[in-house]
Amino acid sequence: MTRTLTGSERDRFVAALRQEIGDSAVSTEPDDLATYGRDWTKVFDPAPMAIAFPRRTEDVVEIVRRCADDGIAIVPSGGRTGLAGGAVAARGELVVSTERMRDLGAVDTRALTLRAQAGAVTAAVHAHCEPHGVTWPVDFASKGSSQIGGNIATNAGGVKVIRYGLTRQWVLGLEVVTANGDVLELGGALEKNNTGFDLRQLFIGSEGTLGIITGATLKLTRVPGHLDVLLFAVPDLAGVLRLFDAARVGPFVISAFEFFTDRCFARLARHRALSMPLETPSSHYVLLEVEAHDRGALERWLESLFERDLILDGTLAQSAGQGRALWELREGISESLSATGMPHKNDIALPIATLDAFVSELDAVFTKEWPRFEICLFGHIGDGNLHVNVMKPDDMPKAEFLAHAHESDAAMFELVRKHHGSISAEHGVGLLKKDFLGYSRSPAELEMLRAIKRTLDPEGLLNPGKIL
Amino acid sequence: MTRTLTGSERDRFVAALRQEIGDSAVSTEPDDLATYGRDWTKVFDPAPMAIAFPRRTEDVVEIVRRCADDGIAIVPSGGRTGLAGGAVAARGELVVSTERMRDLGAVDTRALTLRAQAGAVTAAVHAHCEPHGVTWPVDFASKGSSQIGGNIATNAGGVKVIRYGLTRQWVLGLEVVTANGDVLELGGALEKNNTGFDLRQLFIGSEGTLGIITGATLKLTRVPGHLDVLLFAVPDLAGVLRLFDAARVGPFVISAFEFFTDRCFARLARHRALSMPLETPSSHYVLLEVEAHDRGALERWLESLFERDLILDGTLAQSAGQGRALWELREGISESLSATGMPHKNDIALPIATLDAFVSELDAVFTKEWPRFEICLFGHIGDGNLHVNVMKPDDMPKAEFLAHAHESDAAMFELVRKHHGSISAEHGVGLLKKDFLGYSRSPAELEMLRAIKRTLDPEGLLNPGKIL
Repeated sequence: MTRTLTGSERDRFVAALRQEIGDSAVSTEPDDLATYGRDWTKVFDPAPMAIAFPRRTEDVVEIVRRCADDGIAIVPSGGRTGLAGGAVAARGELVVSTERMRDLGAVDTRALTLRAQAGAVTAAVHAHCEPHGVTWPVDFASKGSSQIGGNIATNAGGVKVIRYGLTRQWVLGLEVVTANGDVLELGGALEKNNTGFDLRQLFIGSEGTLGIITGATLKLTRVPGHLDVLLFAVPDLAGVLRLFDAARVGPFVISAFEFFTDRCFARLARHRALSMPLETPSSHYVLLEVEAHDRGALERWLESLFERDLILDGTLAQSAGQGRALWELREGISESLSATGMPHKNDIALPIATLDAFVSELDAVFTKEWPRFEICLFGHIGDGNLHVNVMKPDDMPKAEFLAHAHESDAAMFELVRKHHGSISAEHGVGLLKKDFLGYSRSPAELEMLRAIKRTLDPEGLLNPGKIL
Repeated sequence: MTRTLTGSERDRFVAALRQEIGDSAVSTEPDDLATYGRDWTKVFDPAPMAIAFPRRTEDVVEIVRRCADDGIAIVPSGGRTGLAGGAVAARGELVVSTERMRDLGAVDTRALTLRAQAGAVTAAVHAHCEPHGVTWPVDFASKGSSQIGGNIATNAGGVKVIRYGLTRQWVLGLEVVTANGDVLELGGALEKNNTGFDLRQLFIGSEGTLGIITGATLKLTRVPGHLDVLLFAVPDLAGVLRLFDAARVGPFVISAFEFFTDRCFARLARHRALSMPLETPSSHYVLLEVEAHDRGALERWLESLFERDLILDGTLAQSAGQGRALWELREGISESLSATGMPHKNDIALPIATLDAFVSELDAVFTKEWPRFEICLFGHIGDGNLHVNVMKPDDMPKAEFLAHAHESDAAMFELVRKHHGSISAEHGVGLLKKDFLGYSRSPAELEMLRAIKRTLDPEGLLNPGKIL
């Protein structure tokens, strides 16, 4: 079991660690403790004992062994852009930041692979690949800060999942330091390797609770050709789904199918002074991005949507600038909700077949129980992922709102369970969702998760209290 | 621990099981024991105690609980097309065949999902999807017999991996019966579900040693458009790889990049009386299948290969019939090797960057140590996967050949380890490769595999002796 050190014990531990991995590689500065002890959730007060900045895998091994000897809990830390508290250190843990481990190997254009240290920033990986006409297709709003190791530890999603899948599909090899200080090289640079259980996949998405990811061999893909961006107005969620059906058989490859409601747009318009490029106002909007090899066929498909009454209005961007402007309508939502009020966020997934029924039932529950709450819905409909934002009424005290939001979460998660959905589609569990895990995992599954945690980390050294 | 029953104990067990899951659901017929006790390896003598044919997941639960009570080992069994002995029952085990569990749900064309029982045959899944213009893109030679559950348990590969990845990318949800009889519903029909360790991925590829897969929600994709098939002659393996580089940046999506040597072709020509459609003879041939949206661009690319001296000869199939004929050159190899001699098979993977060096070193070792062995090389070069077939010299006794082959395997696996490859790319480990597992997994990894096995199956009930 891990424990909290006294002040003098901490000083001795820090001094010994500095001797091993370098003076500048360990910080106890209050600013650093505050910064590296939290992630984007900002719900928990940070209180780490110190921050370690290893440069090499061997440093991480040394850190883990010392922590194991002294019973000190470790919080692995990447770009700290997580939204579930997975990188929060609030109980005297040692934070192990990978930010100085950011070496990138040469891009292998034949095998389409790239070796990266865990601390490499996602956008830096993209920039490193770009001159070669290839990319690592994991792409989301926080890519300027998020790190490869954190992406892998949380199995990050994003806007391109409908085309490329989640992070776990784009990792061939993984270097992991285990709780007893072993370095595992899992999978290497191989696409195919059926030699026993895939430990690599077990570590991906385990949020730092089973091992510390120190490096990876990333699988790359060619940069897609020209992407067309379209925006549509449809009357309701059923209309969104009918449009999705039409897009599924359209003359193109879908790279994003995103939706948002008029409530989201109203707050975006207020915050960023943007206007809607469609003439027909509606309650539901869809952004579609496609790779079309035949522009004429794309235009005919668009015309057919009007003829088939599948859309109220629609537009196809005629330039890269127009395409970016349409994307801003979708990508500016999250910031605009926070700028114009206080959102309580959830990130859920439903089987697409049940989305319409789920949202109807959710509306009914809120209308009855919490009629003053405004729900702002947006998300990656194409893969069943809804971001549900409940906005605090301006005249309601924060504490009262949070108490109600806790109740409404439980009501929503009941509906999620009923429809066989997930309480956390892409954000993970961390600290924020762990009380609700039972809505998505059965008692037998939870027992198996705990058993695996005990097997791989019997002393509870790695990110204790997260997920389980 | 499991044990072997006496004759009367066996009779009592079978009678009790019949009462529970039906008279016709348990067989002790010698023909059935011989058939269901082996897979395609044909190396081990089958000796199961009985064969159970459950129809429902509840039957499997009942079987597992009774076996757990009586200490009887279970061998989960699908289409038995495995090539590593993973479905062999040679030590009095109860074989649990899923072949009567073959229900398929409705194709969800919106979500692109399909629910299938484990015993559904791969080709039946393809046929079920075809009218909807979608498919499950797991495709290989034994698809007429192999079952979904076995594909998932072995993480099957095949000729389309370069485009679609392995089976593990095409399974959204998994129903598994655990060693203590719990039924886990993992992942549901969700693309996104980050709620703790991905147990689904842990079961995929575990060869029936951690749980019995009884059903799955498969992820589907649209059937690709027209596929063009090309055949090339190149001077050597380096030439194969240079051609691969050119294909990587060609005006198309690659759906297969396969290679074979003249030795493979000579045996194919002998067995099936086929002729080579290229005029220039060579030692190395490449079959390329692509989805090209611009036929003119494809033809110009082909011309440029001649101009750049990247190929000795090449042809583009002008009809579907010609395309099938080119594919027969590749897909007929395995059968032709067995028909014209006795092949000793290996299925290895290397990082593509090391393929050329590996094959040179392999040739040198064989020339020096086993000069009379003919090596027939073919495989899915695009994902680093080589099928290495060592042919028995006609005048060498079988026992002598097998003894030498065992030595040459060890020498080859040393080279595989040196180049960070895998001793089993897609066939798995089963019984046949378990002695060599240490060439691809470190002692720390092996210990972790064993610990996970102990955690999920403490009594060693499920497929004991396989992998580990």
